[in-house]
Amino acid sequence: MAGSTFGTIFRITTWGESHGKALGVVIDGCPAGLSLCEADIQKYLDRRKPGQSSITTQRKEADEVEILSGVFEGRTTGTPISLMVRNTSQISRDYGNIATCYRPGHADYTFDAKYGFRDYRGGGRSSGRETIGRVAAGAIAAKILNQLGIEILAYTRSIGPFTIDYTRFDKDAIYSTPTAMPDYETSRKAFDYLQKSREACDSAGGCMECIIKGAPAGIGDPVFEKLDANLAKAMMSIGAVKAVEIGDGTEVSSRKGSENNDAFLMKGNHITKATNHAGGILGGISDGSDIIIRAHVKPTPSIFQTQRTVTQTGEEIELQIKGRHDPIIVPRAVVVMECMAALTVLDAMMVNMSARMDSLEQFYTK
Amino acid sequence: MAGSTFGTIFRITTWGESHGKALGVVIDGCPAGLSLCEADIQKYLDRRKPGQSSITTQRKEADEVEILSGVFEGRTTGTPISLMVRNTSQISRDYGNIATCYRPGHADYTFDAKYGFRDYRGGGRSSGRETIGRVAAGAIAAKILNQLGIEILAYTRSIGPFTIDYTRFDKDAIYSTPTAMPDYETSRKAFDYLQKSREACDSAGGCMECIIKGAPAGIGDPVFEKLDANLAKAMMSIGAVKAVEIGDGTEVSSRKGSENNDAFLMKGNHITKATNHAGGILGGISDGSDIIIRAHVKPTPSIFQTQRTVTQTGEEIELQIKGRHDPIIVPRAVVVMECMAALTVLDAMMVNMSARMDSLEQFYTK
Amino acid sequence: MAGSTFGTIFRITTWGESHGKALGVVIDGCPAGLSLCEADIQKYLDRRKPGQSSITTQRKEADEVEILSGVFEGRTTGTPISLMVRNTSQISRDYGNIATCYRPGHADYTFDAKYGFRDYRGGGRSSGRETIGRVAAGAIAAKILNQLGIEILAYTRSIGPFTIDYTRFDKDAIYSTPTAMPDYETSRKAFDYLQKSREACDSAGGCMECIIKGAPAGIGDPVFEKLDANLAKAMMSIGAVKAVEIGDGTEVSSRKGSENNDAFLMKGNHITKATNHAGGILGGISDGSDIIIRAHVKPTPSIFQTQRTVTQTGEEIELQIKGRHDPIIVPRAVVVMECMAALTVLDAMMVNMSARMDSLEQFYTK
Amino acid sequence: MAGSTFGTIFRITTWGESHGKALGVVIDGCPAGLSLCEADIQKYLDRRKPGQSSITTQRKEADEVEILSGVFEGRTTGTPISLMVRNTSQISRDYGNIATCYRPGHADYTFDAKYGFRDYRGGGRSSGRETIGRVAAGAIAAKILNQLGIEILAYTRSIGPFTIDYTRFDKDAIYSTPTAMPDYETSRKAFDYLQKSREACDSAGGCMECIIKGAPAGIGDPVFEKLDANLAKAMMSIGAVKAVEIGDGTEVSSRKGSENNDAFLMKGNHITKATNHAGGILGGISDGSDIIIRAHVKPTPSIFQTQRTVTQTGEEIELQIKGRHDPIIVPRAVVVMECMAALTVLDAMMVNMSARMDSLEQFYTK
Repeated sequence: MAGSTFGTIFRITTWGESHGKALGVVIDGCPAGLSLCEADIQKYLDRRKPGQSSITTQRKEADEVEILSGVFEGRTTGTPISLMVRNTSQISRDYGNIATCYRPGHADYTFDAKYGFRDYRGGGRSSGRETIGRVAAGAIAAKILNQLGIEILAYTRSIGPFTIDYTRFDKDAIYSTPTAMPDYETSRKAFDYLQKSREACDSAGGCMECIIKGAPAGIGDPVFEKLDANLAKAMMSIGAVKAVEIGDGTEVSSRKGSENNDAFLMKGNHITKATNHAGGILGGISDGSDIIIRAHVKPTPSIFQTQRTVTQTGEEIELQIKGRHDPIIVPRAVVVMECMAALTVLDAMMVNMSARMDSLEQFYTK
Repeated sequence: MAGSTFGTIFRITTWGESHGKALGVVIDGCPAGLSLCEADIQKYLDRRKPGQSSITTQRKEADEVEILSGVFEGRTTGTPISLMVRNTSQISRDYGNIATCYRPGHADYTFDAKYGFRDYRGGGRSSGRETIGRVAAGAIAAKILNQLGIEILAYTRSIGPFTIDYTRFDKDAIYSTPTAMPDYETSRKAFDYLQKSREACDSAGGCMECIIKGAPAGIGDPVFEKLDANLAKAMMSIGAVKAVEIGDGTEVSSRKGSENNDAFLMKGNHITKATNHAGGILGGISDGSDIIIRAHVKPTPSIFQTQRTVTQTGEEIELQIKGRHDPIIVPRAVVVMECMAALTVLDAMMVNMSARMDSLEQFYTK
Repeated sequence: MAGSTFGTIFRITTWGESHGKALGVVIDGCPAGLSLCEADIQKYLDRRKPGQSSITTQRKEADEVEILSGVFEGRTTGTPISLMVRNTSQISRDYGNIATCYRPGHADYTFDAKYGFRDYRGGGRSSGRETIGRVAAGAIAAKILNQLGIEILAYTRSIGPFTIDYTRFDKDAIYSTPTAMPDYETSRKAFDYLQKSREACDSAGGCMECIIKGAPAGIGDPVFEKLDANLAKAMMSIGAVKAVEIGDGTEVSSRKGSENNDAFLMKGNHITKATNHAGGILGGISDGSDIIIRAHVKPTPSIFQTQRTVTQTGEEIELQIKGRHDPIIVPRAVVVMECMAALTVLDAMMVNMSARMDSLEQFYTK
Repeated sequence: MAGSTFGTIFRITTWGESHGKALGVVIDGCPAGLSLCEADIQKYLDRRKPGQSSITTQRKEADEVEILSGVFEGRTTGTPISLMVRNTSQISRDYGNIATCYRPGHADYTFDAKYGFRDYRGGGRSSGRETIGRVAAGAIAAKILNQLGIEILAYTRSIGPFTIDYTRFDKDAIYSTPTAMPDYETSRKAFDYLQKSREACDSAGGCMECIIKGAPAGIGDPVFEKLDANLAKAMMSIGAVKAVEIGDGTEVSSRKGSENNDAFLMKGNHITKATNHAGGILGGISDGSDIIIRAHVKPTPSIFQTQRTVTQTGEEIELQIKGRHDPIIVPRAVVVMECMAALTVLDAMMVNMSARMDSLEQFYTK
């Protein structure tokens, strides 16, 4: 089916493979009148660009975005925005046994099981490069949200055994450390850990966190289109994510109600909460507090140790993976999480505009 | 928006409020020719029925389902199946301050923020009774899956501090303990814990687990319609769920690649895996192993202790909740999880049928 | 697939068969705060009720609607509105050869071809009674549109060889003639024609027209979600409709551009058009003029003459149809057309609210 | 909203403007394993290419398609196929008053009304060049249908007052006449008519017809996703189409049932019909006969006569249009119609694969 489309009103469709000609995205339903240029998008793509430190893949890609449609005289026209990034570093080489065997932890086997064959070059469509389209589209969603007073911040919460200390939280560190951690001290320890992991031909997992600040109360729809349900889908759709938490997440299952309920209180004229265990969502609808999401990312499956696996023809073999791989996925995935959050929240906000009869009356009868 | 619809081909739309006339669901896209009667559905509804033990609400509801359409001479016709359950136990009473104040941990405030007002009787649409439609529809999905050799099993994994011991796993215990735990010993401890919690005017959280056995490899679609992404959405859409895990879930974030990768191996002619850390899904597509999902459920927010909150008009008050409430949500939610899993997997399987050119050729050119 | 759902934001799902227990509709995405009661809906259902004159079927049905959810204290809550009409006149009888043979002009054969079998009682899901759900939902859409200053008017334009004379157009006649024609004189002639047709054991076709007044300019989306494209789908989805025209419709194909273009001109401060050949839609988007749609309806296929057909087992037979049938479909379908127009336009208007960046800013940043 | 997407399983999203950098389409849900190269698509694009005769616009465009993703080693992989056509002939020029006034019969005014401003260069998104994406995607759908034994044929039925004579029907003429008529004699007359129309600074309308041969019975879904409803939407979504007919279309409204019903009969072991007034669709589902569709196209609104119109600021003016325009839309739109039919039928066929329980059982339990 059409698995590459996300969103109801602000709807994106991504395309492209790791070693194909290009990757891209079509954004349909973007409101008209937004000021937009390539630089708005490029700064997000640059955050996921490979080759920026020793703990990311050494593949070199400029990942330069081109706006092909939907923008006229510097503003969006309301019609589809087509964005494209050409692949430039597809090394022409022998893919060797990757073409004929199944790498553990990868989608090689499942793609073959589904489609009968696969584009095996660099993982094809299941490569992390697929997220280029998400990030390019998410940059636009984030720009719109910013103009509506909403800020989204994602960062690395933990790498292997190292978790950030919130008392040292420093937003600048997200953008200046190779780990994308908002805590310089923990970042240094995690970096050392990753270097050792790399030397041991191994890889590491980690946890990302995302905070959405300034979202109004009332966003999300009851039952199946709950804001947290769509955020969970958005995050779990990022390759390698194996768990998603909202607010206090897994901890709630061992709590008592008296510990977990957030008391409402007044702050001036506004309703707010004494605590935010709920992570900003009640009954699937935003309550005006910070929305808090965590996503747990598995270690990069491409490791340089010898592994057991099987071939397409059912032969058991020992596999030695080559190539250029990230020793950890998280630091480059943080901006993907931020973008998926932006896409989800903006779409829910656009859908929400017709939830009340008085909104329709104000819009259509002046 | 239309938040009450789930699924692409096997598509359900639920409706109804806690204290309205009735609740129900329309299932559209059910394959023709399935043998179906009310008893098939009733046995699932009976598993979520209230009043069955001291640790569920004492509200008495027969929750009897009526098939209104889509079945002829005992078989589904392929047209919409409308199912309805009449409410019979809506006690006519003074809802008191619930109508005018916001219960902590509930959706009262967020519904008001979104819609301007709300049906405050028993939580209206945000009540747990909303899941009747999910379970009625899920019973049909589960019946179809069973005929295709797929079994779905959900149960309580933990309640408060008590987690099941897998070495004592006993499937029968799921249906015969009040906790829905597959471990009699842990169930007894958890039951005692809940009794004490109830006496303390408090409530408890817990964790549910779901295992899908027999699903073929190749189910799910890349990028946004990944099977795990849709399962995450399905589970997070259940009221009170705050975290969803696939396979080893949150644990992967502190792992090394060499620990987390599942080696492929041959078992006779079949490809299988030495371990199943991935929980049966690779790259968003099923790999033929058991699919494993966990959902963490917050403690029932309705507790009988005095709580701080605010009124609709912005006055801070102390709230004393009355009524009939479950001291824990999990045991009755287990069947809801099972049904959401069935709906998600069946829909993905139906969508998958046209993934290959040779499937189309076999179907249309005999 | 899920063929019984219509609309993106204001989304309806209909269900039920001619001789089943009941028929109904779930409306999801209705804005909160609309005053609504059964009488609002009943007056539309009464316009499609059978047994009101000698030129409609003599089947007697009260067709009384019950609101099962989504309305609280007389107002819509924003959650799904479930409406049900019980069938009361399903005469228990021998369906005879209808169960085993294919009536010409009916969907008996195609349902069997698709689903393997069918509910043969009165046409099952392909019966005209299926439109009860459309009309019940459309009544709500029309009420909302009325509050936004939009009026929708559908009527019979022609029956057999008799077409209304617009110089005698009288809106009251639509509701007081058995033909639903807005022209008493033509109505009398058409009525006589239908009486003779009935006596000759035959049936008649006709054309319906619908005018939407007061719709703002700017409704509809480019390319595939054009307003006229969705209106065409809406009308063609009504059983027995075989052609749909917008504005001057089929006539444009023999015209010159100089004859067909509508000049723009000013009327006070407003932009308007000198003529309306376009029927109020340019490039798929409303231009503020009246929106004009016509739908051509085939003669009722159930006629009492002997017809040639085949049985399920491939035997050629002569068929004699019995039962209660409308000698013409049009007069009762006029309200269905009106309702489908209302559903289409309202949904497009709700979707349109987020088309511009300044609309989002006004809505979310006060 | 997302107006640029069409289809449920075989889903396309088009993008691009007349004078932007490029136009294109993303096809998601294409079955894996289809042999595909650029030439398969180019031959369809060449049929809509401008500048091929004196009755098409003299704009010169190579319209060369590039496959950017989704094809590996000559076969589709099941992942999104991205197709792009670069614009090469956007003459840099003064668009003059087109930027500030509203051309009669065009979407200039309605785009401004909706979005607040527009890309005025050559009609932007509302240009006929938008159909490049439809044709590129439709070429793939048609190739798949051909492999399933289904042939789709569209041609010009009438131009101005000249209608083809079916007794002279010659398929070759469709591709060798400048009119795309399957009748050389009528084509010559129509061509003369168009030459005179052009000399008179005027334009002409016409009617296109499409026949789908070999589609199995059982395609399409009841109620809203009827095959004819989706075909009507598909055709009406083509710019300038103002009416759509299925089978005998508008003629049915003046017929009697005894004239209009198609008798079923046996042809060997197969059920067929004595006549085909229904145009191959009964109750919204294909009956195995030829599916027949007609679309009526208005005259090109760009004419070189002086016309009355208004400016964005509300001034009434006289407008003289310049540039390169087709004196008739129909001959180049015929392939668009063919492609929209292919997209609609293929999607319905893919959806149909899960309509029966026994199909699921055959697919999943071998």
